[in-house]
Amino acid sequence: MARIDIDQLTAGIRDGRYRALAQAISLVERDDPAATRLLAELYPSTGKARILGITGSPGAGKSTLVDAMARHYRSLGQRVGIICVDPTSPFTGGAILGDRIRMQELYTDKGVFIRSMATRGFMGGLSRATNDVVDVLDAFGFDVVLVETVGVGQDEVDVIRTVQTNVVVLVPGMGDDIQAIKAGIMEIGDVFVVNKADRPGADRTVTEVNMMMSLVEEHSEWVPPIVKTVASLRQGIGDLAGAIEKHREYLVTSGELERRSRERVRIRIETRLKDQFMQRLVGETITPERYSAMLDDILHKRDNPHDAASALMDRVKF
Amino acid sequence: MARIDIDQLTAGIRDGRYRALAQAISLVERDDPAATRLLAELYPSTGKARILGITGSPGAGKSTLVDAMARHYRSLGQRVGIICVDPTSPFTGGAILGDRIRMQELYTDKGVFIRSMATRGFMGGLSRATNDVVDVLDAFGFDVVLVETVGVGQDEVDVIRTVQTNVVVLVPGMGDDIQAIKAGIMEIGDVFVVNKADRPGADRTVTEVNMMMSLVEEHSEWVPPIVKTVASLRQGIGDLAGAIEKHREYLVTSGELERRSRERVRIRIETRLKDQFMQRLVGETITPERYSAMLDDILHKRDNPHDAASALMDRVKF
Repeated sequence: MARIDIDQLTAGIRDGRYRALAQAISLVERDDPAATRLLAELYPSTGKARILGITGSPGAGKSTLVDAMARHYRSLGQRVGIICVDPTSPFTGGAILGDRIRMQELYTDKGVFIRSMATRGFMGGLSRATNDVVDVLDAFGFDVVLVETVGVGQDEVDVIRTVQTNVVVLVPGMGDDIQAIKAGIMEIGDVFVVNKADRPGADRTVTEVNMMMSLVEEHSEWVPPIVKTVASLRQGIGDLAGAIEKHREYLVTSGELERRSRERVRIRIETRLKDQFMQRLVGETITPERYSAMLDDILHKRDNPHDAASALMDRVKF
Repeated sequence: MARIDIDQLTAGIRDGRYRALAQAISLVERDDPAATRLLAELYPSTGKARILGITGSPGAGKSTLVDAMARHYRSLGQRVGIICVDPTSPFTGGAILGDRIRMQELYTDKGVFIRSMATRGFMGGLSRATNDVVDVLDAFGFDVVLVETVGVGQDEVDVIRTVQTNVVVLVPGMGDDIQAIKAGIMEIGDVFVVNKADRPGADRTVTEVNMMMSLVEEHSEWVPPIVKTVASLRQGIGDLAGAIEKHREYLVTSGELERRSRERVRIRIETRLKDQFMQRLVGETITPERYSAMLDDILHKRDNPHDAASALMDRVKF
């Protein structure tokens, strides 16, 4: 691959060139060493985009909802970046969800940029990669960045924790709700959507969410609203955008936006530090071969994980 | 608190004293500095227990199934340790599932030991704490250790990755299955259980699991069996134990047991190293106050996360 001119790429992003955008995202996804400089250069231009999470189980209609939301923001003249996090197995790395309905029509609109990311195969993890791509889209000038996730796994939870407003999408039907609610998704929602609200049981689902919400112990001043939508018919999207806007106002006036932005910074830096630490530890203080032999020694009881960890830490000077 | 005599505690565990067991587990859960020495002392006595994961959504009947399995292994004269991982919110730390049905009768049987662990509040994380408690139970002489989890979040996925055989519990009803399957739980199952199999739709669920299994790309030689149970009536438990035993034989003959045990060692040591790194980095190379000021600088664009991480890493000598 040709040497990457970071200055040119940075200028390309600032000038809004789509070719530079695609190049930059590829660089960032690969965690190319040059990406770090690019991101450092772009960082001062970030902070203007609204970063929204759209979280829900497969089958909840997230893609259709994201599509409808993108159209809504476009109709207001805003530019929309979309990051779809595709759930893949934590064990084989194979994507199960190949049947995602893509928003083909939107691709011809330069005001919408869509990127799919699989949950594996990113150096430093999905959370690192997603946040870096959000920064690139933000610096490029997208007004809204939608991050669509299933919300399962620490990686995805980390992604959710770095958005400004998280929209949790549910569908009518008790089974799904119990799942979503009891698995902790309940407490990560700033706004709840009951999508496919033309199906039977929509009102019951709204009631159930309200009931579960009353059981959550600690509440901030913000009481998450529940919005009914039929994304396929683009119904309720204005209400949803309104609820998101209200949450934005709450974030700003309560100081929560500052708190969340700070937490976002902390998560990002610590994720990167921990990964760099392991990379350098195995490589600079111990060869990969000796590290492997050490694991074998522990496995066969010639050593134990506790003393081995201490011995490795002793080689690092703080 | 009185000074802990680790030699006495280690001897107590080896001699099978229950008071020492409870003390040791408390020590380990707190990640007390003395716990490291205790675990290092006990480590050579580990490796004899069967470590089984029982993973499934709330409402799948995991607790009842674990109860029935414990009775089964007890009837064969085996001692059973049970670790129940209670899902709590990643954000408020409050346990939602207070309604767990506990296996009161079993408490009077010294051959069964039950410990509940919440998913938050452990230094070094739940995965670290759970694995250390598994080691204590193993060293104490429990023949089987059952680790019950909901299987959501990286912490729990890490726990699942460290068991020898993972049993995924499903219930009849399409909604639940789609959830479980698509969220990646499908590929973490060594044995599948369709519990509450006296309900309508049990056979359909078996068919669905079979269908989904055929879609999973990479398969090992092991084809996960699907066992129907009615845990509340203790039906199908012998079949389940048989399937687990067959998986054990596969693990041993294929070399997969060695591979998994090695991966368990690797995950455990790296989790501990990363946590110790962050603890020492913020404290020894930078004061918590200056670290906090650094995050503020990044937040307000006076610095960027990439250069800040590099600067921190530069202070560490490998």
